[in-house]
Amino acid sequence: MEFRIRGVGVIHTCHATKDETPVQGAFQPDAVGTVELFPEFAPGLKDIEMFSHLILLYHFDRAGKVELVREPFLDDTPHGIFATRHPCRPNSIGISTVRLLGREGNILKVGGIDVLDGTPLIDIKPYVPRFDSFPDASEGWFAGKKNRAKPPGRE
Amino acid sequence: MEFRIRGVGVIHTCHATKDETPVQGAFQPDAVGTVELFPEFAPGLKDIEMFSHLILLYHFDRAGKVELVREPFLDDTPHGIFATRHPCRPNSIGISTVRLLGREGNILKVGGIDVLDGTPLIDIKPYVPRFDSFPDASEGWFAGKKNRAKPPGRE
Repeated sequence: MEFRIRGVGVIHTCHATKDETPVQGAFQPDAVGTVELFPEFAPGLKDIEMFSHLILLYHFDRAGKVELVREPFLDDTPHGIFATRHPCRPNSIGISTVRLLGREGNILKVGGIDVLDGTPLIDIKPYVPRFDSFPDASEGWFAGKKNRAKPPGRE
Repeated sequence: MEFRIRGVGVIHTCHATKDETPVQGAFQPDAVGTVELFPEFAPGLKDIEMFSHLILLYHFDRAGKVELVREPFLDDTPHGIFATRHPCRPNSIGISTVRLLGREGNILKVGGIDVLDGTPLIDIKPYVPRFDSFPDASEGWFAGKKNRAKPPGRE
């Protein structure tokens, strides 16, 4: 099974390099960016302002080689790539939930953004707590892991 | 910007037709299915059992024509496609958070699954409440919308 993805926009952020890009938006909730939808897709934004949070899907376009078992950013023990959020994964798609701060035409202003500047946007979905919020889910190996600088060589 | 997606597995469920597939997993939390990873990707599952919830990314492989503004399943008012979770969207990728019930080798047993039987799997990510749970997010137009049968012709 194969199919082709075409970007629907670009995410602009203050994160110019991988090292300065936060591991997760939760670690830098004040990071503000803009999501620029290509004009032909702008009609699809109708009523987006009704939502406080959005789920962005995007292409990890500068990710390195896929490794199925590897050290992630927040731990020095290797885990399976599907038990991590690391970018070097099959199909190189990332997801992030961001706060919607405002909209001007085809441009959304968002908070808590954790992606590299210039990242290609694949999709936007409304975050709906009834469907997406599971506050009692386990943290797995993330439990107790605090934010830290990305160790060298982790991509 | 274009890139190619290759399935990493198949999702098996009891939902054989679109009509009987729940609109969201939250509406049928007891629906159990299996996520079969192709054997070459199985090493990437190491430590997945540490998580109670997983985010599945999959291909809406039987979705109809993309419409940028349309009636979704739960409302009779048209909304922009990016303000809905409807399958008929650019890039036809769906996401669902499911409960992990067990694992046997490259097969995961999951609960609360809301996808059609045979859906191609694109990615699995661990659900981490610190990063993914926003219980106070607004519900947008979903507020007060209860589960219902999919209206005819909604795809």
